[in-house]
Amino acid sequence: MQHLSAELESYGPRVMLVYGGGSIKRNGIYDRVTAALKRAGKHIVEQSGIHPNPIIEHVREGAALARREQIDFILAVGGGSTIDHCKAVAASAWLDADPWEYYYKEHNPLACRWIPVGCVLTLAGTGSEMNRGSVISNHNEKLKLLHHFRFPEFAILNPEFTYSLPHYQMVSGIYDIMSHILEQYLSGNDDNTSDYVAEGLMRSLIHSSRIANVNPRDYEARSNIMWIATWALNTLIGCGKAGDWMAHLMGKAVGAFTNATHGHTIAAVQGAYYRLLIEKSEDAARRFARLAKNVWDVSPEGRTTREAALEGLARMEDWMRGLGLVMNISDLGADESMIEGMAAITPSNTTGYHTLTPDEIKQIFRESL
Amino acid sequence: MQHLSAELESYGPRVMLVYGGGSIKRNGIYDRVTAALKRAGKHIVEQSGIHPNPIIEHVREGAALARREQIDFILAVGGGSTIDHCKAVAASAWLDADPWEYYYKEHNPLACRWIPVGCVLTLAGTGSEMNRGSVISNHNEKLKLLHHFRFPEFAILNPEFTYSLPHYQMVSGIYDIMSHILEQYLSGNDDNTSDYVAEGLMRSLIHSSRIANVNPRDYEARSNIMWIATWALNTLIGCGKAGDWMAHLMGKAVGAFTNATHGHTIAAVQGAYYRLLIEKSEDAARRFARLAKNVWDVSPEGRTTREAALEGLARMEDWMRGLGLVMNISDLGADESMIEGMAAITPSNTTGYHTLTPDEIKQIFRESL
Repeated sequence: MQHLSAELESYGPRVMLVYGGGSIKRNGIYDRVTAALKRAGKHIVEQSGIHPNPIIEHVREGAALARREQIDFILAVGGGSTIDHCKAVAASAWLDADPWEYYYKEHNPLACRWIPVGCVLTLAGTGSEMNRGSVISNHNEKLKLLHHFRFPEFAILNPEFTYSLPHYQMVSGIYDIMSHILEQYLSGNDDNTSDYVAEGLMRSLIHSSRIANVNPRDYEARSNIMWIATWALNTLIGCGKAGDWMAHLMGKAVGAFTNATHGHTIAAVQGAYYRLLIEKSEDAARRFARLAKNVWDVSPEGRTTREAALEGLARMEDWMRGLGLVMNISDLGADESMIEGMAAITPSNTTGYHTLTPDEIKQIFRESL
Repeated sequence: MQHLSAELESYGPRVMLVYGGGSIKRNGIYDRVTAALKRAGKHIVEQSGIHPNPIIEHVREGAALARREQIDFILAVGGGSTIDHCKAVAASAWLDADPWEYYYKEHNPLACRWIPVGCVLTLAGTGSEMNRGSVISNHNEKLKLLHHFRFPEFAILNPEFTYSLPHYQMVSGIYDIMSHILEQYLSGNDDNTSDYVAEGLMRSLIHSSRIANVNPRDYEARSNIMWIATWALNTLIGCGKAGDWMAHLMGKAVGAFTNATHGHTIAAVQGAYYRLLIEKSEDAARRFARLAKNVWDVSPEGRTTREAALEGLARMEDWMRGLGLVMNISDLGADESMIEGMAAITPSNTTGYHTLTPDEIKQIFRESL
């Protein structure tokens, strides 16, 4: 915690400590963080119980608390949900408007008075610790709001803080990382250094995830995974890339109806979506064939482009099953009756290889059941 | 130049404009930069004639000028030499001591009063635009001083600004980039994400350099090369790596005796050095075999580790010859009489796979003749 103590020196005395369901109290991280805060002479105000899919009601509560308590600094201890929540609180505390109304209209959060945010990461996956993104749910409207606030001031990445995470959460984070890389990789036809770096990150992730799956306390593997998560979504491999993000948008719709864990929702829809992409788009088929060769060691010899693409996808799904990811949305609690609703809140991006029609979106959800 | 104009707003009115031999006057970049400075209402003081291997005499002159002129901001227009010079000037202007004496004693430059530095890059290679490094020569002592000052505040990377660079300089920069990646890659035996990212950067560099070699005005290729140069040496792929840097140290010694261009000096010694590494160290042989497989597409099947390693090296040297790199130090002006002197100023690093003895250093220089 010496790094945390050093960072805290730069900020004022009134700190809002934010965390989720309380696992940090059981694994000792809460005690270590509060001890560091007290040593630094900070006055601590807490907000806890942040949901895995953070909700706008908690943002409103946190913003009111931060304003009332004249908070100088917000410390997120947790994973992406807690950090996303803290970014939204930081940009809402001094806002004289309702944050949902205000930010849903795409007002610029960079123009607002802001409370600086720091992170102690306990779950590797979202990359929220080194980007501007924040996803907040409004369950009344079954909608998610993605907004781009500010980068956290710092993030403490200690792989040991992720050891006590349940296996189901760990692999959800691992697939979230893979999906972040793929969403950026699956766009564009130019020769872009970002894609080469993305392939390196994927190879490292696959290797380390297989080790962590067997031995979650392998420091090296958990360290690599934590580091890849950060670099998967901190703008590096997004340079020059339009991005796709349809697997994420469909996964979010599944999450809105089932409240299932983020990484699993994407894992459960990716197969149907990627097969449709390979079928509908030559560019997608070529990109998946490149992925197959450079990441999944599928030789292009004796295979058509689509055959190579599908073989790569099959190897990826073997890897996913080996990790224990949920591969269909029924197992996450979705059923046929939700498909119209999920499709209705899934926008269709135009930046990937193929723009999905509403019928195709429903078809993907149905095939993912 | 709208990016430069926007950045300049953050700094005071008295700007020191620094460049090298005047090629920026011939290719129009000088006019565009000074126009942007004038539009921003800046008072311009110039220092030009910075050498390809920047020298301490010029740092002393620049520092005196910056202090006398009460400079608020230093703008480097050029490649790594100019930027390295500017970093040293920035950390020496307000120093009440001789910079060579002071920094050679490893005084901490971060404690000194500093003038902020910005860069307009015209040559991709050193990565100096996004790191703390600065290499300054003292020809009286045939020594180079590497010091770590501060990151530049910003760098403008426009691939078109590198188009008019002579081919000899372009390929020198390309091999400098390759060498930066290899120096970090050639250390450690652990499983480190940095190595996977390094492999991706090398693959992209090889691909783009072959295109730029034939068509130097290929925007995409020059853009990738410029971007890889930055990421090759801005700490990303150095995370968790001790690094080797012996090829650089030997190349610098060659440069001190011949004043030859940096990238070519390293290209001319790498072959003898890497073959010795593969012979002397099992770990090095394994690492070069990994490089051969993941970067040079050398199948390990039917080959011993050392055979695979050497085949990878042979393919790298084919690529180097294809670019027109100088592959021996005789062609750079070195001869037998310089070997004792070059060896005398080459320290032996202990962080790579093998610590060279003084005799081995001489042997490498001799084999590189």
